[in-house]
Parts: sequence; structure tokens; C-alpha cells
Amino acid sequence: MLDRIDHVGIACRNLTAKIAFYESVFDLTVMSREVNEEQGVREAMLRIAAAPGGSSWIQLLEPLAPDTPVGRFLARRGEGVHHIGYGVDDVAASLAALHEQGVRLVDERPRHGSLGASIAFLHPKSVGGVLTELVQAAGAGH
Amino acid sequence: MLDRIDHVGIACRNLTAKIAFYESVFDLTVMSREVNEEQGVREAMLRIAAAPGGSSWIQLLEPLAPDTPVGRFLARRGEGVHHIGYGVDDVAASLAALHEQGVRLVDERPRHGSLGASIAFLHPKSVGGVLTELVQAAGAGH
Repeated sequence: MLDRIDHVGIACRNLTAKIAFYESVFDLTVMSREVNEEQGVREAMLRIAAAPGGSSWIQLLEPLAPDTPVGRFLARRGEGVHHIGYGVDDVAASLAALHEQGVRLVDERPRHGSLGASIAFLHPKSVGGVLTELVQAAGAGH
Repeated sequence: MLDRIDHVGIACRNLTAKIAFYESVFDLTVMSREVNEEQGVREAMLRIAAAPGGSSWIQLLEPLAPDTPVGRFLARRGEGVHHIGYGVDDVAASLAALHEQGVRLVDERPRHGSLGASIAFLHPKSVGGVLTELVQAAGAGH
């Protein structure tokens, strides 16, 4: 079902400062910046590797407001890893299979993610404390 | 410097149960089990993808005792993502370059990691709350 680690989603307070850090210290480059109003985040995607099945990324996330999922995460836990995104071929089919197995879903249907992907979150309570995202890259699957 | 997301390290209370979960729900397979006395963990590596630069893994970690880094993490934060490991070509050279840039290191010299890798940790306070591991896979680099 999972064909790669698509990205690590990292919550931060200041996107511009964190981009500067990852660019200067780890020599990475921002390939895309987006605002996702639905998820309440301003984000940047830094590419780590381009693999045959799709690239891997660091996704830096700054909340648009304190009363958003990432804003509440920062208040509760501070900066750090917010979620892990795994690449799948067909996010809708994966959701159906996971639901069938009793995994608690945050999203019952796929929604819009970064870089035109179709994504869905699984509830961390069902995945050993890990907020887990399934990512069907734009152009992948059907 | 970073050539791939090598692994996501996930802290758990019961390694056997967590392996069963990842195998049955996500259809992954344990490729290796190890006890690392130095790090105070019992661990399993589940391969997600084999990429040209090296594979990507989920690393499940159960502490050998409460008074270990992963044991203290579980007591403080509960189960979840413990660290992120990035692939590098030469861990010693990367450490030197990061030290030069003022990044705080947990390990000043490489030590033994999973699957025969040479690894080193960077301090989360220097990397925006993310405990960050550099991984030079066995046979990579020099």
C-alpha cells in the first residue's frame, strides 16, 4: 500500500526563518510555497530526493492562526514533527481498505494537498500516536 | 547534503504489537530486528521503498528500560514520531560541516546504527524541535 515516504511535515512558528535554516544548513531548495486555507497553513516544500515513484520532501508548516490544527499543535507540543506523509497509488482505494480494517480516518474522502496531490489523514490514535497522511501525487494512480 | 529520507523513527511501548499493526494494516514487512544496547532500544526496520540512493524505512523503537532516551520520550510525550533519519554520503564530513555552521550535535563522532549504518544525531534544539539523525548506509561513502 505504501510506496514511499512522501514527506515529513514539520510545524514551525516562522516559515521564512525555518526555510532559511533548512536552505543554509542542509543545502535544500524550496520548490513550492502554498497557502492552504482549508488546512489553515502557510507551507513550503523542500525537495530531498527525486525517486522513481515520486519525490520526497520536507514540508514546513506555519499556522495561519492559533485556532487551527497546526496552531493548536504548536501551543501544545512546540515546534517539531507534525505528521508523516506516505505515497500511495490510489488514496481513495487505500482509505476504503483502511476503513475496512477499522482504522479511524480523519478524512473519509480525499482532499487537496500540496503540489496538486490528493491526500487524506488517518487519526493518530489509530496509528500509534503518528498523524499519518496518505498522498497520491498529481498524475499518479487513475 | 541530504540525499533521502532514510527513515522515520517511531517510539512505541510494545514492539511486537506495533510490528503486527504495521504488517497487517499497511502490508509492510520487517526486514531486520536488532537490540542496540548503547541506545537502549529494541527495534525493527520495515522497508517502505528501495530507492537508487538507498532504501526508506519505518523504524519501530521500544525502550529497553524507562531510564533510556526512548523510555523518557514515551513518559513525556507518549507514542509517536521520535526522530527523522536522513541519508548522507559521508556522516563524518556532514557532522564537521554542521558543527562549523553552529549546529549543536548530540554525537560528535559517528556511531553504530541499524543495518550496519554509521549514524549521528543532531540536537533538536538546533533543528526546530526535530531530533535529526544522519545515516550513512553500510557500504556508502568512503
